Amino acid sequence: MQYFDTGRRLVAEALGTAFLLATIVGSGIMADRLAEGNTALALLCNTIPTGAILVVLILIFGPVSGGHFNPAVTLSFAIRREITIRDSILYVAVQLAGGVIGVIAAHAMFELPFIQAAEQARTGAGQWLSEVVATFGLVGTILGTLRFSPTTVPYAVGLFISAGYWFTASTSFANPAVTVARGITDTFAGIHPEHIPAFVLAQLAGAVIATLLFGWLLRPEQETAE
Amino acid sequence: MQYFDTGRRLVAEALGTAFLLATIVGSGIMADRLAEGNTALALLCNTIPTGAILVVLILIFGPVSGGHFNPAVTLSFAIRREITIRDSILYVAVQLAGGVIGVIAAHAMFELPFIQAAEQARTGAGQWLSEVVATFGLVGTILGTLRFSPTTVPYAVGLFISAGYWFTASTSFANPAVTVARGITDTFAGIHPEHIPAFVLAQLAGAVIATLLFGWLLRPEQETAE
Amino acid sequence: MQYFDTGRRLVAEALGTAFLLATIVGSGIMADRLAEGNTALALLCNTIPTGAILVVLILIFGPVSGGHFNPAVTLSFAIRREITIRDSILYVAVQLAGGVIGVIAAHAMFELPFIQAAEQARTGAGQWLSEVVATFGLVGTILGTLRFSPTTVPYAVGLFISAGYWFTASTSFANPAVTVARGITDTFAGIHPEHIPAFVLAQLAGAVIATLLFGWLLRPEQETAE
Amino acid sequence: MQYFDTGRRLVAEALGTAFLLATIVGSGIMADRLAEGNTALALLCNTIPTGAILVVLILIFGPVSGGHFNPAVTLSFAIRREITIRDSILYVAVQLAGGVIGVIAAHAMFELPFIQAAEQARTGAGQWLSEVVATFGLVGTILGTLRFSPTTVPYAVGLFISAGYWFTASTSFANPAVTVARGITDTFAGIHPEHIPAFVLAQLAGAVIATLLFGWLLRPEQETAE
Repeated sequence: MQYFDTGRRLVAEALGTAFLLATIVGSGIMADRLAEGNTALALLCNTIPTGAILVVLILIFGPVSGGHFNPAVTLSFAIRREITIRDSILYVAVQLAGGVIGVIAAHAMFELPFIQAAEQARTGAGQWLSEVVATFGLVGTILGTLRFSPTTVPYAVGLFISAGYWFTASTSFANPAVTVARGITDTFAGIHPEHIPAFVLAQLAGAVIATLLFGWLLRPEQETAE
Repeated sequence: MQYFDTGRRLVAEALGTAFLLATIVGSGIMADRLAEGNTALALLCNTIPTGAILVVLILIFGPVSGGHFNPAVTLSFAIRREITIRDSILYVAVQLAGGVIGVIAAHAMFELPFIQAAEQARTGAGQWLSEVVATFGLVGTILGTLRFSPTTVPYAVGLFISAGYWFTASTSFANPAVTVARGITDTFAGIHPEHIPAFVLAQLAGAVIATLLFGWLLRPEQETAE
Repeated sequence: MQYFDTGRRLVAEALGTAFLLATIVGSGIMADRLAEGNTALALLCNTIPTGAILVVLILIFGPVSGGHFNPAVTLSFAIRREITIRDSILYVAVQLAGGVIGVIAAHAMFELPFIQAAEQARTGAGQWLSEVVATFGLVGTILGTLRFSPTTVPYAVGLFISAGYWFTASTSFANPAVTVARGITDTFAGIHPEHIPAFVLAQLAGAVIATLLFGWLLRPEQETAE
Repeated sequence: MQYFDTGRRLVAEALGTAFLLATIVGSGIMADRLAEGNTALALLCNTIPTGAILVVLILIFGPVSGGHFNPAVTLSFAIRREITIRDSILYVAVQLAGGVIGVIAAHAMFELPFIQAAEQARTGAGQWLSEVVATFGLVGTILGTLRFSPTTVPYAVGLFISAGYWFTASTSFANPAVTVARGITDTFAGIHPEHIPAFVLAQLAGAVIATLLFGWLLRPEQETAE
């Protein structure tokens, strides 16, 4: 695939991750404010915008930078040697920066303090297993659709994360840049900073396992007619 | 792209904007009546129809007129010299007229007074920033999908606005014709007329910024193989 | 377009209309039972299945029979001389029969009396205007997408009706076969039989107006390069 | 269609069925926990993830194994001689195994006992008729879209099941592997093991009827121009 020059790729990754985080955190705030304590309704009104914006962001930034917005995805492509180490590091840096900017933008739109101390506990074996499964599934979704039907990647990612909000116990962060950025918001989407490292570790593990397993499963040279 | 003769283009813009406003205002009335005070549920039942009708309207009127239904979008195309100044002015005029007709149609269907004094306050820095962000994102969505995958424009716009209802504090009007028309309804979707000018200004600012930034980001001549 | 032999076309129209009605009435029963009196939630859980099944039914039966499932749509194609008078009459007959079978199937699945006396009042100028607007929009959606992007017809129809549930005061029956069949159920989706004729009249009026207006708007011979 | 070697096909069927069950059971647990007793809301938050994950799983595993994840679907293809008897048996075995693994994974993520005694009664004529209708419709959806627009299969299946959750009285299990696996969870999605055989029988009946009826309806050699 042909991508753009590095400067514009990094802007695309930063802008995309910023919009992703603004949506996750902003819709969490809006949903939580309006749902009158019904958490299922709040989570649904957090799920739908997140799934929707992912489709849009990958449609518009995917052809520029690949549309990762996610260090775990960048890691997977680095393992597959589809992105250089140098570019991977730059991608992760701007993803992290973009995520923080997105959270601040959400706070600004809702007139809240820009940087907050997140209190929400998200820890324990069930949560960590959830993040392994979520990131495994997300990376598998990307590798599978890229292999067979590249134009469906944006929709598949949006739908996978929409499902992940509900079928994992952690609501599927599945993204280290998202996890870090959610550490500076004390709203619906927040995560206590002390609980971030285990989440990130679980996400990277899920990404590595998926990269290896799907690398084998989807390898074209073994394809046979039947 | 080939469009139709001016008369039919203006009818398409007017009819599309009328259906858009009938949907925003009509579904707001229905949702508000049935939701028993649960505002998250009401807003969800306002979001889904709006996103859905945008997809439909751009599918059927896009090939006729471009499917703007939005002076901020028309402004962006005028800056890009993809529509003449004369046509832009005509587009904006029929968008405004269509929007008003759509609100009246919604009122008529729900047996309410045709023209109402809107009371709902929508003002303040958070609201204005939200409208800048929303219109920036909407115009970026259109320019990005037009550039890379034109058949996805209708879906991308519907999904972006569905997300925008939740991740911005203003519920993403992102459209001066929509904003003006919502000034004559005192229902769920209404906006006090005094608060319209700042919204429109913020929207035009967002559209201009997006046109310039995405103009640079998506410029094909800098594309490089890697 | 090439369709199948008449026998199979009629089976497709009957089966499709039966599934459509089973979904409208069945999901209405399920939603109403579970929603604990919250009508917005019940209507949402009636909307989503109806929109979804329409996409599916048009995808699988569209290439067989055109996928009308709706006498108003068949009327529009008859006016356009895209279906013969004889076939139109056969289509409408099996649509009506299929619709009734679908309602009975829904009743059987939910262990209710097969034929019921519908009590729900749906009458008045706002309701009738709603049905004119809904059917006008539905027929315009079909003619517009058929003209410009035929593969999108199923999605556009599903999305239009999903919006129509909310932006019209009548929840957009927009279909005489649906209207008649809903006259034999005293559940969420029911309509008192005395109120059926005015609904059907409004729907036929909307279909005729749309056929004429969109016939002019979409006429290819006036297309001009610009 | 070209598929992969048998080993990878079986892994794809197992992995896909595991993710399907993890989603059905996991989202049921999450939705039920958060919905505060509102069953319509819980079922909606069970429906959306299930429909979404089906689209994703068929997109990524469909080209590998056909993406059945369902013994009733495998039976239909065996009747049509599009899969060998030997492969059918292997498919069904790994679907059953994958389903059980998926339920255990959901229990592990939500920190519940891995294997549970399901108590939820799902029995009676209405339930069995529902499963006949649901599986008939599902198989018809697959055969119809495969025949006319193969790239839409994933979306059509996801949408059909989303509708089926609501328009059938049984919430459309429509899948013997899903039914068996839901017999080991005492959560929202559970089914008492004694009620499984009748469900499976109804599902197989629906699949056989659909295979015969749609085989006739979609037979290409009778196609005629008109």
